[in-house]
Amino acid sequence: MRAPVDQPTIDQPTIDRTTIDRIDAWWRAANYLSIGQIYLLANPLLREPLTRDHVKPRLLGHWGTTPGLNFLYAHLNRAIQQRKQSTVYIAGPGHGGPGMVANAWLDGTYSEVYPDIDRSEAGIGRLFRQFSFPGGIPSHASPDTPGSMHEGGELGYALSHAYGAAFDNPDLLVACVIGDGEAETGPLATAWHGNKFLNPRQDGVVLPILHLNGYKIANPTVLARIPEDELLALMRGYGHEPFLVSGGFDGEDPKAVHARFAAVLDEVLDRIAAIKAAAAAGDESRPNWPMIILRTPKGWTCPAEIDGKPVENTWRAHQVPLASARDTEAHLRVLDDWMRSYRPEELFDESGAPFPEVIALAPEGELRMSANPVANGGLRRDLSLPDFRQTAVEVDPAARGALQLESTAVLGHWLADVIRHNPADFRIFGPDETASNRLAPAIYEATAKQWNAEVVSVDENLAPTGRVMEVLSEHQCQGWLEGYLLSGRHGLFNTYEAFVHIVDSMFNQHAKWLEACRRIPWRQPIASLNYLLSSHVWRQDHNGFSHQDPGFLDVAVNKSAEIVRVYLPFDANTLLSTYDHCLRSVDYVNVVAAGKQPAPQWLTMDEAIEHCTRGVGVFPWAGSEVEGREPDVVLAAAGDVPTLEVLAAAAILRERLPTLAVRVVNVVDLMRLQSEDQHPHGLPDAEYDAIFTTDKPVIFAFHGYPALIHRLTYKRAGHDQLHVHGFQERGTTTTPFDMVMLNDLDRYRLAIAVLDRVPGLAAANPEFRQELEDARTRARDYTREHGEDIPEVADWRWPVRS
Amino acid sequence: MRAPVDQPTIDQPTIDRTTIDRIDAWWRAANYLSIGQIYLLANPLLREPLTRDHVKPRLLGHWGTTPGLNFLYAHLNRAIQQRKQSTVYIAGPGHGGPGMVANAWLDGTYSEVYPDIDRSEAGIGRLFRQFSFPGGIPSHASPDTPGSMHEGGELGYALSHAYGAAFDNPDLLVACVIGDGEAETGPLATAWHGNKFLNPRQDGVVLPILHLNGYKIANPTVLARIPEDELLALMRGYGHEPFLVSGGFDGEDPKAVHARFAAVLDEVLDRIAAIKAAAAAGDESRPNWPMIILRTPKGWTCPAEIDGKPVENTWRAHQVPLASARDTEAHLRVLDDWMRSYRPEELFDESGAPFPEVIALAPEGELRMSANPVANGGLRRDLSLPDFRQTAVEVDPAARGALQLESTAVLGHWLADVIRHNPADFRIFGPDETASNRLAPAIYEATAKQWNAEVVSVDENLAPTGRVMEVLSEHQCQGWLEGYLLSGRHGLFNTYEAFVHIVDSMFNQHAKWLEACRRIPWRQPIASLNYLLSSHVWRQDHNGFSHQDPGFLDVAVNKSAEIVRVYLPFDANTLLSTYDHCLRSVDYVNVVAAGKQPAPQWLTMDEAIEHCTRGVGVFPWAGSEVEGREPDVVLAAAGDVPTLEVLAAAAILRERLPTLAVRVVNVVDLMRLQSEDQHPHGLPDAEYDAIFTTDKPVIFAFHGYPALIHRLTYKRAGHDQLHVHGFQERGTTTTPFDMVMLNDLDRYRLAIAVLDRVPGLAAANPEFRQELEDARTRARDYTREHGEDIPEVADWRWPVRS
Repeated sequence: MRAPVDQPTIDQPTIDRTTIDRIDAWWRAANYLSIGQIYLLANPLLREPLTRDHVKPRLLGHWGTTPGLNFLYAHLNRAIQQRKQSTVYIAGPGHGGPGMVANAWLDGTYSEVYPDIDRSEAGIGRLFRQFSFPGGIPSHASPDTPGSMHEGGELGYALSHAYGAAFDNPDLLVACVIGDGEAETGPLATAWHGNKFLNPRQDGVVLPILHLNGYKIANPTVLARIPEDELLALMRGYGHEPFLVSGGFDGEDPKAVHARFAAVLDEVLDRIAAIKAAAAAGDESRPNWPMIILRTPKGWTCPAEIDGKPVENTWRAHQVPLASARDTEAHLRVLDDWMRSYRPEELFDESGAPFPEVIALAPEGELRMSANPVANGGLRRDLSLPDFRQTAVEVDPAARGALQLESTAVLGHWLADVIRHNPADFRIFGPDETASNRLAPAIYEATAKQWNAEVVSVDENLAPTGRVMEVLSEHQCQGWLEGYLLSGRHGLFNTYEAFVHIVDSMFNQHAKWLEACRRIPWRQPIASLNYLLSSHVWRQDHNGFSHQDPGFLDVAVNKSAEIVRVYLPFDANTLLSTYDHCLRSVDYVNVVAAGKQPAPQWLTMDEAIEHCTRGVGVFPWAGSEVEGREPDVVLAAAGDVPTLEVLAAAAILRERLPTLAVRVVNVVDLMRLQSEDQHPHGLPDAEYDAIFTTDKPVIFAFHGYPALIHRLTYKRAGHDQLHVHGFQERGTTTTPFDMVMLNDLDRYRLAIAVLDRVPGLAAANPEFRQELEDARTRARDYTREHGEDIPEVADWRWPVRS
Repeated sequence: MRAPVDQPTIDQPTIDRTTIDRIDAWWRAANYLSIGQIYLLANPLLREPLTRDHVKPRLLGHWGTTPGLNFLYAHLNRAIQQRKQSTVYIAGPGHGGPGMVANAWLDGTYSEVYPDIDRSEAGIGRLFRQFSFPGGIPSHASPDTPGSMHEGGELGYALSHAYGAAFDNPDLLVACVIGDGEAETGPLATAWHGNKFLNPRQDGVVLPILHLNGYKIANPTVLARIPEDELLALMRGYGHEPFLVSGGFDGEDPKAVHARFAAVLDEVLDRIAAIKAAAAAGDESRPNWPMIILRTPKGWTCPAEIDGKPVENTWRAHQVPLASARDTEAHLRVLDDWMRSYRPEELFDESGAPFPEVIALAPEGELRMSANPVANGGLRRDLSLPDFRQTAVEVDPAARGALQLESTAVLGHWLADVIRHNPADFRIFGPDETASNRLAPAIYEATAKQWNAEVVSVDENLAPTGRVMEVLSEHQCQGWLEGYLLSGRHGLFNTYEAFVHIVDSMFNQHAKWLEACRRIPWRQPIASLNYLLSSHVWRQDHNGFSHQDPGFLDVAVNKSAEIVRVYLPFDANTLLSTYDHCLRSVDYVNVVAAGKQPAPQWLTMDEAIEHCTRGVGVFPWAGSEVEGREPDVVLAAAGDVPTLEVLAAAAILRERLPTLAVRVVNVVDLMRLQSEDQHPHGLPDAEYDAIFTTDKPVIFAFHGYPALIHRLTYKRAGHDQLHVHGFQERGTTTTPFDMVMLNDLDRYRLAIAVLDRVPGLAAANPEFRQELEDARTRARDYTREHGEDIPEVADWRWPVRS
């Protein structure tokens, strides 16, 4: 056991005896209600003798972190009431779900959104029963919990979410509890540096509270087992002024800990107020924001020993300390004693409602942390979106493809306008790639990168306030954006396609959050999570194989069809139209992959809008169809490079096999390929068949791994005739055209596939087929010899024409 | 521009003038060779006037970090030669690939493994040409680079790899260069804590060298822009003693920086030697290992300005400072002047070989960092594997399924034996889940968890040396294991199935590394990367929806079929047989998913070995086939829970429709489902058809997302008749049986699917079909009401039998 350590110098009491009693009463009530959720099916207030039948048959949940979460909630309540400080509570140790639910119930919010769970004995009974029970609520802080904007399942993102919520919320305090287990994760370990990206005037305040309870599931935690001087140095190294409170060990009276903690909390909030005042007066420099380290026993107030083994203050308190409460009489008695140790008779009146003194220190209305609209998406307003048609690229239908532009750079112009129109609730996040992805320079005509560390003379586009957030951590970008969206604002995350896999698991969690929210009417919709994946697999000119991976699309479509949208715009105008749609949507994840390199522009703005609205369509100008009859073959594409290669292949075939009826199809909205019953965007079978035919060969050139197209079209009539060319995990640092050749996605290979798949065609045209093979060999030899594409690649018929 | 900062107290020169000159000569030579790789196609030693035709048409690569990497390499060489210290060099900023190649060439190793790239002018010409050129080598430090055991593509894992290499290598020094860009990533930010898991006696030494060059692609770095006291506090908080060297700013003579750095390096190596001596004498406590912070200008020694804009010491030096060297005469002159500033005529003799003074300070043989066998897998010996049959579970073929055991716990017994047999080159890694995944308690009878932070009296199984590595960071577990494998040892990573997505991108990079190694004969094979995914989607009793995700299998199969293996053993004996196979294999990634909950045991050990050897097979004892004719329907399963449900469904059908010929198939090796031409494990079509038939309905119960089975069987004859039941992204905290019902994977739904898919069967048996629906409803009602599975669930025919 660890003895209380030296306290910081704040030792003057700031609250009186009555306030301490009230904090303690809230804490006991929250603890009691937490344990009840884990253990009890009936007899919630122990008004009859506890029997085994009152105990749940499967004991699920996590007690260990809960008393600490409840302790902090009680203390924050007191301070909020006193200071009228709008506050959001992020529970990093979200496994302490029963605690968050208990506090929301004590707040009254829980009964407001779930009237059935009222403040009565019966309501408490239902509160207990539903926890981790079929048809009830999950064991972690989840969307079901009012005031929770942070899923407590996977660990690591609490502090990133906290910063995301604080950006552009100047009057908000985000109290972020970080467990010492979570603190070992990589994303959390770097999230501390968020304070270099926070403006003390324009943004809110993040108060990190590192809760050291010493143990994870089966191990001590690193930060609880390093010398205190190292721990304090670490926090100072992260740019914080740390305040340490330790207590509750060796039977210390909790009321003494309440007094110490309240004094530290008041000191910390006073310092924050001083920093905010200085910032309001114009000092935007980075302050040493205070933070708190709270060291308490794991499972504080649970039985010290069970069956002769220490439990409180050990890892044995992590989940359910009494796993066999139902099975032995002795354990049942331990549970009974434990629950009665909180003196429920002093906490709940005859009806089951908390006594007024118990909830006297709670704030009211939206000052309740469980009712703060920030945590429930309630701040969201629609963006004011400038007309993207004004940014359109002029495409001459008589010379499609002649104009070469960087599509993402065009999008950058429009996004700069979006920023101008929405100066306070739209941000762009990126891991040092916003310029590389070509949103710059346009974007920096409208805004800067927010940066609150040192600036030197050669720096460009850095400022204490700005709409672009850049740090070399995909985890931070995603986590900040999630926090920003969950608290009701808008944004996008631009990143290299391959490395979005770094946040696969974060995407999964966010998609699950959105999916769960569909069942929760009182939660406000939030803006969609928008990805812009650029520097994609086909154009990793500087980087090679390690940067070539289009597999995030596969990860994305595993999640609920109600949530996930995947778009592959192939030129600037389709990208503009797509992104306008994405920024208007709510409660989705929109995955958009688009190239940043100069590339041919194909559609006029009107055509692009029409095409994107349909999501999939035929390009009559590219094919060689005959009015009134089905084509001989369909050449389909999804993605910018595949579209270029398909259009080139179609041009070759038009020129050399003019009687072959080739239909060219393009898919922008990938989900259109699925059936109606699989995805809301799914094309009805009749429409799909009308486009792709039911029996003609379809040569499909795809941006990603081919299997995804097969997966999406699995239930379609013609799927046996579908032949997909895509990334085959073959890559290196080489020329763009060598890349498509390596993966059989090039125009020649596609044209050869048409010859081979249309019955009789190859046999009828052996010389032409050989000519295509020869052209391919020539191209490969040229690129290997000279290290460049043939210059005429800009002409997409090259080099067959010559 | 940043002025040189205060130096630490080490200011006594430790090297003489001649040594400084030699360090500088190596450094200039490496810098020259790096620039040559990026820019030149011909005229490598500038022995004729430089013309545009000598310059590559596409300039690719990264100069910015390279001079720093070369500087450190030169200094380490000097120290290694002096101290005969076996050293591996991890280049965190692996984008500096040309530097690593240049140093390996100067070492002589490059010419040894690539005789064509000899130490001649022509060899240098080929060295230059191949870089980032079609058919050549990638732009990053890669498997092609001798001495590199760390792919320099994705950032974040350098320090984790360094610790992995140091474990169980007591005489090794791992010099790990960490870029200040990479330092912003989450995985790197927590990797510093690796020093709490390193034993100073039994393990090697990691020397982190944080290289602050101040800039990323387009931004300054956080750690370069915080006050020095914060930076030093951060390093002290991480448990290090930091030594800072700053130099090269404002035109400072590099030789002065050489002198300062050499003195610091000597001091640091002396301290390390003292720590190692103390450890050898028995002091295994955690020391404050020294580390170095080196602050130099980005792109140091490149042109200070180009076109009037500052380049050296700005982000403009990140990639190719002179992107248009070929296009304008003025830029060509800048390149010419820049390259000649290294005085190549003093570095390379008439033949093109480096002058003896240039390479005089380099160590020889395996002391060359580029030739250290640790970096090339050369330490690997086969494991001594105990006979897993000794650990077999006794299954009575007359009462299959009667015995219930935790399969991973049985594996734990065998792994304990593996540890006993291999005390120095096998480790188990896990994010605080090794006990939760049930490898404990058996594993801790053989070993402990290695832990070098504080230990208190209630701790169990923690020790300064141990074979189990636990930290709550999947990134660390994976990174440590990768480093351990890449340096020639063996291990496995056990983790919760859902959260292995946290390391999706690391898996991708490792799989790409292995794929690239297939082309490189001089690299030694390394042990396979073995995953044990437990606490899987179907049994997340404590956690719910956030912990339910079987999608890693989809990520895995996107990578090269030559590398990836996926196994779904469904009981203890199949798990034992599978893992024995995995631990014998090399150069693969083996993904094994297996449950940890008590579950029925099905196969005898002999049957398990035979079944696992085949990878897929029919269970005659479970079906109701008639000798000599095809079955009416195939019930197939992959995974433990699906196998249970399929066997239960088959039992129901056997009992109630005895004339229906049901074949029961189980798939352990998922890759068997693919065609022979898609995967080396793929079943020949004839064998597949013999098992699955070509036209009978196949009801396939799958552990993961159903699309994966469709994907793998896409080219099979009967795939239109394949109906897959798997995880449909429906979950919460509920009972195990409710989980399978929610996802249509339960025995009743499978039996109903058989009725519905076998022509005429449902119509002929309407009452039975209704009975199945009713049983399903009963089960759901029971589980919702009582919060438990029906106790008789252990009998897999339940509750139809009653």
